[in-house]
Amino acid sequence: MTLTELFATRSDRMRASEIRELLKLLDQPDIISFAGGIPDPALFPREEFQAAYADVLGGKEASAALQYQVSEGYLPLRRWLATEMGKLGVSCDEGNIFITSGSQQGLDYLGKLFLSPGDTALVTWPTYLGALQAFNAYEPRYDRLSPAGGNMTPAAFADAAAANGGKAKFAYLVPDFANPTGETMAKEQRLSALDLAQELGAVVIEDAAYRALRYEGEPVAPILALDCERSGGIENARTIYCGSFSKILAPGLRVGWICAPRAIVDKLVLIKQASDLHSPSINQIVIHRVASQAYDAQIEKLIAAYGARRNALLGALEATMPAGIHWSRPEGGMFAWLTLPEGVDTTALLADAVRDARVAFVPGSAFFADGSGTNTLRLSFTLADRRAVEEGIPRLAAQIAQRL
Amino acid sequence: MTLTELFATRSDRMRASEIRELLKLLDQPDIISFAGGIPDPALFPREEFQAAYADVLGGKEASAALQYQVSEGYLPLRRWLATEMGKLGVSCDEGNIFITSGSQQGLDYLGKLFLSPGDTALVTWPTYLGALQAFNAYEPRYDRLSPAGGNMTPAAFADAAAANGGKAKFAYLVPDFANPTGETMAKEQRLSALDLAQELGAVVIEDAAYRALRYEGEPVAPILALDCERSGGIENARTIYCGSFSKILAPGLRVGWICAPRAIVDKLVLIKQASDLHSPSINQIVIHRVASQAYDAQIEKLIAAYGARRNALLGALEATMPAGIHWSRPEGGMFAWLTLPEGVDTTALLADAVRDARVAFVPGSAFFADGSGTNTLRLSFTLADRRAVEEGIPRLAAQIAQRL
Repeated sequence: MTLTELFATRSDRMRASEIRELLKLLDQPDIISFAGGIPDPALFPREEFQAAYADVLGGKEASAALQYQVSEGYLPLRRWLATEMGKLGVSCDEGNIFITSGSQQGLDYLGKLFLSPGDTALVTWPTYLGALQAFNAYEPRYDRLSPAGGNMTPAAFADAAAANGGKAKFAYLVPDFANPTGETMAKEQRLSALDLAQELGAVVIEDAAYRALRYEGEPVAPILALDCERSGGIENARTIYCGSFSKILAPGLRVGWICAPRAIVDKLVLIKQASDLHSPSINQIVIHRVASQAYDAQIEKLIAAYGARRNALLGALEATMPAGIHWSRPEGGMFAWLTLPEGVDTTALLADAVRDARVAFVPGSAFFADGSGTNTLRLSFTLADRRAVEEGIPRLAAQIAQRL
Repeated sequence: MTLTELFATRSDRMRASEIRELLKLLDQPDIISFAGGIPDPALFPREEFQAAYADVLGGKEASAALQYQVSEGYLPLRRWLATEMGKLGVSCDEGNIFITSGSQQGLDYLGKLFLSPGDTALVTWPTYLGALQAFNAYEPRYDRLSPAGGNMTPAAFADAAAANGGKAKFAYLVPDFANPTGETMAKEQRLSALDLAQELGAVVIEDAAYRALRYEGEPVAPILALDCERSGGIENARTIYCGSFSKILAPGLRVGWICAPRAIVDKLVLIKQASDLHSPSINQIVIHRVASQAYDAQIEKLIAAYGARRNALLGALEATMPAGIHWSRPEGGMFAWLTLPEGVDTTALLADAVRDARVAFVPGSAFFADGSGTNTLRLSFTLADRRAVEEGIPRLAAQIAQRL
C-alpha cells in the first residue's frame, strides 16, 4: 500500500492496522515524522548487548540460553526484577514476577484471563492503541474512565456493565507519561482508581512502560505500591503491574514482565505454556546481564537525550502554534498530545501535511475506544532531533493554521 | 512440588501442567530419563550462534536487530523459508510465510483464528500435548481422527460437531514422526485426510516440527505439497503448515513459521500485532544467518547422532522387553511409543519406576484428548546415550515385567 492509497479511502478514523501501515510508509528520508512511538536506535546500548551475547554463548550458560526454559521465565532475571520493584515500594519476590514477550503480551494475556465477550474494560479516552488491540480479541465493551474526575459512580459503572451482560473486569491505566497523552496521574487519582476498582470487585492493570523516563518533577508511587500499602502486601493487592525493557534497553529482544500476586502469576504461567511455552531463553539471560550492569546508566542517558528533545518540542510548539491549539506538557515518556478546535479533522490534516509539508504525526482518534477525538493528534519526540523540531513544527503549525 | 507429592495425589492421568512439572523434577543426575522431549544441547550449533550474534550486533543490521520489527517477520528469513518450502514441493513466496515465536505460538494463533467454543477439532488419539493445551483455551470439542483408517464418514463427523453446537473447523496432524507415537502417515493417508477436510469444509493443520529428522526410509511429501498439487497452488490450499527451528537449530530463540495461503497469513499478522507485536528481531536475523550457512549440515549432524540413539533404543527394547509389549519403530523424530497390555496403568508404573529403578518416561494418557491410553507410554531418545539405553531400558523392562 502507498500513502496515497492509504489516505484515498479515508472517510473515518484509521484502524490500528492502518496506523501501523502508516508508520512503515512514513519512513522516508524527506519526511519529518513525529508519528512513530519508537525509541531512538542511536541510544541502544549496542556494545553492552554485543558483549552480553558473546559472553553468554561463550560461557557456562550457553546451553541454557539455547534450550527450552520454564514458562515463568529466567530465575535470576525474575529475582533482579523483584529487587527493582522493591525500590519502587513493591515488596515482593520472584514468585510475583512473570516474564512476558514485551508488555504487549502481558496485555494480551490479561485480556485472555479476565475478559469474556460482553464484559467491560474501563479505559481512558484516549488510551494506548495496542491495549485496545489486545483486549479487542476478547470482545469486551469499553467504558470511559476519567482519572481527572467526573467519573460515573461505581454503581453506575456496574449497572452499565450488567446491562451489557457482563461485569467490569478491570481498569487499564498508563499512569506515568501515558501513551498517547503524555499525562501523569497524581497520587490522589491513583488512589481514586483503586477505590473504584475495589468497589467494582475489579482489578487494575497498571501499564508502566514509560515510568523510568521522567525528565522533570517528582516520581509518583506506582498504583501497585499504593495498593500494597493499603491492602497489606502484594498478595492482597488487586493491581497488576506491566513493565517493559523495550523503552529503556531495546524492544527487539521482546522482554517485559508482570508483577502481581502469586495467584495471578500462576494463572499466567498456564496461559504462557499453552501459547508460546516461554519467552526466548537467550534474550532473558542477556537482558539480565545488561540490566544488572547498565540499567541505571542507560536511564540517565535516555533522560538527558529525550529530555532535551522534549524541551525543544515544547519550545517550538509555544513559539509557532496558532491560538486555540492546546497541548500536554509531559513530565516524561515519549509523547505530547495536541488538541485542535472541534471540527478540525486530524486524519485529513495528516494527508495534507504529508503531501504538502512532508511532516507527519498520528491522528488521535485511533486512540479512542469510541472513535471520537478526531480533533486530536499525537507527537512523538524520541526521534526528533533539534533540526527536525525546528523545521517540522513550524511546518505543522502552518498546516494547522490553514484549517482554523 | 516434589516427585513424591506429584505422585501422591495420582488417581487419574496427569494434566499437562503436571507433566511439565514432572519433567523439571526428573532432571536429577541419578535418574535415567526418557521423558523430556527436548533436543540434546551438546548438538546445538553454539559457535555458529555466537558468531552470528557478534556479527549482527557489530554490523549494519545492529539497529534493526534491537528495534521493533514488522509483525509478519524479518523479510530475508521469510524469503529463505519460501525457498525451503519450494524444495519440499510447496511453490510459494514470502507473502505465504509468517514468523511465529516457536510453532507452539502458531498452534495458539490457529486455535484463536478458527475455534469458537463448542467447535470441533479433529485430532489423533494420542496427539501432541502442547496442541491440546493451545486449543483448549478456545474450548473446542475433540473428535478422533485415525490416519490408519476406520474413520467415521464426513457426514457423521459433521453431524457430531453440529450436535455440539459447532462445526468441525480443522484436522490437526503431525504427519512425520509424530509426537508422541513416532509414526509417519503414508501418502495415501495424507490424501485421505485432505479428502475428509475438503468434505467437511475444514482446514488441515500440518505440524511439521520433526520433518527434517528422518533416519531411515524415503520422505513423504508434506500434506501442504499434496494439497497444492491437487488444488492448483498454495492460494487454493486448505492446509496450514507449521514449521519450527527448535528441533534443528535451537529452541531457546523461539523461532518458527507458518506457511499458508496469503489470506490466512494476513489474519495471523493481525493476531500477532495484538498479541506480542512481533517475534524478537534479533533472533530472527540470527536464525536467518545460521540457517543460511549451516541448516543442512546441522540436519546431517542430528541425523547421525539421533539416528544412532534411535537404533540403540530399538535394539534394547527388542532385547529386553517382555512378551506382550508393543512399540512403534519411528523412521525419524525423537520418540518411540510403547503399548502395554490393557489394565497396566503407566502413571502408577512411572511412580514405581522412578522410586525403585530411577528410570523415567511420560505416561501416555496425557496425550489422549479423552484421557484414555492409560496403558501407553512415550520414550524420548534424543538425550539417551548408549549407557543410558543399555542401563535404563533393562531396568524399565524389569519394572514392566513385574506388572504383567
